[in-house]
Amino acid sequence: MNNSKTSILAPGSIIGILGGGQLGRMLALAAARLGFITYIYNPSANCPAAQVAAKIIVGAYDDIAAIQKFAQSVDVMTYEFENVPSATAEAAVALCPVFPPKIALETAQDRMTEKDFIANKAGVPVAPNHTVDNEFDAKRALNILGDKIVIKTRRMGYDGKGQQIVETDDAAMAAFKDLGSVPCIAEKFIPFAREVSVVAARNSVGDIAAYPLIENEHRNHILHKSTCPTHSDDGQAQAYTIKILQALDYVGVMAVEFFQLADGSIIVNEIAPRVHNSGHWTMDAGCTDQFELHIRAITGWPLGSTQPLYRTEMINLLGDDVQDWLSLAKDPNVKIHFYGKSDIRKGRKMGHINRRVS
Amino acid sequence: MNNSKTSILAPGSIIGILGGGQLGRMLALAAARLGFITYIYNPSANCPAAQVAAKIIVGAYDDIAAIQKFAQSVDVMTYEFENVPSATAEAAVALCPVFPPKIALETAQDRMTEKDFIANKAGVPVAPNHTVDNEFDAKRALNILGDKIVIKTRRMGYDGKGQQIVETDDAAMAAFKDLGSVPCIAEKFIPFAREVSVVAARNSVGDIAAYPLIENEHRNHILHKSTCPTHSDDGQAQAYTIKILQALDYVGVMAVEFFQLADGSIIVNEIAPRVHNSGHWTMDAGCTDQFELHIRAITGWPLGSTQPLYRTEMINLLGDDVQDWLSLAKDPNVKIHFYGKSDIRKGRKMGHINRRVS
Repeated sequence: MNNSKTSILAPGSIIGILGGGQLGRMLALAAARLGFITYIYNPSANCPAAQVAAKIIVGAYDDIAAIQKFAQSVDVMTYEFENVPSATAEAAVALCPVFPPKIALETAQDRMTEKDFIANKAGVPVAPNHTVDNEFDAKRALNILGDKIVIKTRRMGYDGKGQQIVETDDAAMAAFKDLGSVPCIAEKFIPFAREVSVVAARNSVGDIAAYPLIENEHRNHILHKSTCPTHSDDGQAQAYTIKILQALDYVGVMAVEFFQLADGSIIVNEIAPRVHNSGHWTMDAGCTDQFELHIRAITGWPLGSTQPLYRTEMINLLGDDVQDWLSLAKDPNVKIHFYGKSDIRKGRKMGHINRRVS
Repeated sequence: MNNSKTSILAPGSIIGILGGGQLGRMLALAAARLGFITYIYNPSANCPAAQVAAKIIVGAYDDIAAIQKFAQSVDVMTYEFENVPSATAEAAVALCPVFPPKIALETAQDRMTEKDFIANKAGVPVAPNHTVDNEFDAKRALNILGDKIVIKTRRMGYDGKGQQIVETDDAAMAAFKDLGSVPCIAEKFIPFAREVSVVAARNSVGDIAAYPLIENEHRNHILHKSTCPTHSDDGQAQAYTIKILQALDYVGVMAVEFFQLADGSIIVNEIAPRVHNSGHWTMDAGCTDQFELHIRAITGWPLGSTQPLYRTEMINLLGDDVQDWLSLAKDPNVKIHFYGKSDIRKGRKMGHINRRVS
């Protein structure tokens, strides 16, 4: 990290975003409100964020020369996804401030590193887990961790992809092979009562702001609905999130996903070093939205309010769900957010709605 | 108007906006939320709206060939200012739907036509007035209308420019010459208690939605503060606004500015056939904002909610006011909207803030 870290960027400064999907798009919209100019770096020109940004630079994420040129053209760089190659982040950091910090990327990219960091550096509970580098490890993990485990690839899994639940030695060994015989992690299966998350931000002077606890409902391993506030105690989850932010010397918005057990206790499932789908409700809840919060954090601004003025539920519109736009537009309590994607595909995130529920 | 008038545009359609200032910018941001693509037409490439639009087309407003090409590239055309040349609107209307309708432009461009239309076609009260085409008319107007009149150019006046208050025959005649000896209108001076406005929209199927009455405070003839709701009766002003919308067979957002007298009665000062500075508070009041309302109206969508969830005041940031960005960013009740203008000039509208006040 270079020493621009503690500077505050004035309106008119240029924010570079790696990734031009819906998260990059909503970051660009928020940046514009604060008077910033946004440049998007994306492998293709036709992307959701390009429609609302001042400039689109087309390049591969591993094209170091192109990334360096991009880094030199912006005042701060951020990203919308955690799989930015480490060499890319490294190359950029030498030329401009990059937030969230590289250590957060590296931590979030590997489920084993992530779990280890959360448990041992941040001191926050995670599911009991074990490294799985071969079939025998898979079997051993089941014996050590209990009756039922989840084997996940250490890298690149998302939306339930790259993981299997197993209960027998044979299934454990088969799962390792099915997952491609790549480095994996085994975790004790957690019979959680519900999935919750905290979205929070830390800026370069160390200010922290956290939204209340969010309750999340998944369908087919993809987020379907997020509701906030939850009418339950936010404190423990917020406290854990703050520990993680501080342990990473983090700058930007982070989402921490938790499993909540029947007794109310929580353990971390995973972290996302970026704005997050479970924080989209913030766009219409009367507080600072998570995209603006992220822009404020990475530009050194004060963070704004994370206290919603009413209860909101966010519902993802996947694939053909977006075809219902006209009936959604008729509901006075619904706020529409479409992502400008022309190609409707099954399961693709096309937009979301926020509905005020109290 | 062509027969596309009653069609409903789906997300992904292209909206063309004449004018790339802050109003065009905020229209583009709202259009993006609904999944529309925005093209901006502006005399220069470096304009606030270009930073957040998919395309910027550079051309003069009276370049008919360029306007025609622009009209052919979009699904609907609108504008951010009422001084679009009539020939330009005429040329575009032949090639794509243009909203608000040309008659609204023509009516609003000429204070005499405007007053005549409001009083005689819409049946809504305005200040007693008289045409002034020469010095003798100016003197005669004073004799007919009373002790104190305002002489205004019929065209191109804004923010108090192009008008003079006079109380004597000599001053009346001098004012006409000072204003350039161009066609003018004289209006009886109205000792108003306050200035209020209504922002409302009508879509192509005739649905109408109006925000509550807004109270406006001007400084040096430029809007300083708008507050809504006002704790006073909205009904009469909304009813007058609806009459005007209907008389013009209007489509889009319109603002109607009123003088309110000490007895509570109101008369129309002027209309703006576009989104309006006194409606900027809608961006952070929990209802559909005026920019989205306009996009919904011109694309044939249902209009959404115009009922604010709390009281908000909007304060314009002129010139150096914007330098206070850091202290503004610290106030949790303040929402910032900067316009991306790099060049700070005295009196120039650089941004605004919305502050929740209850």
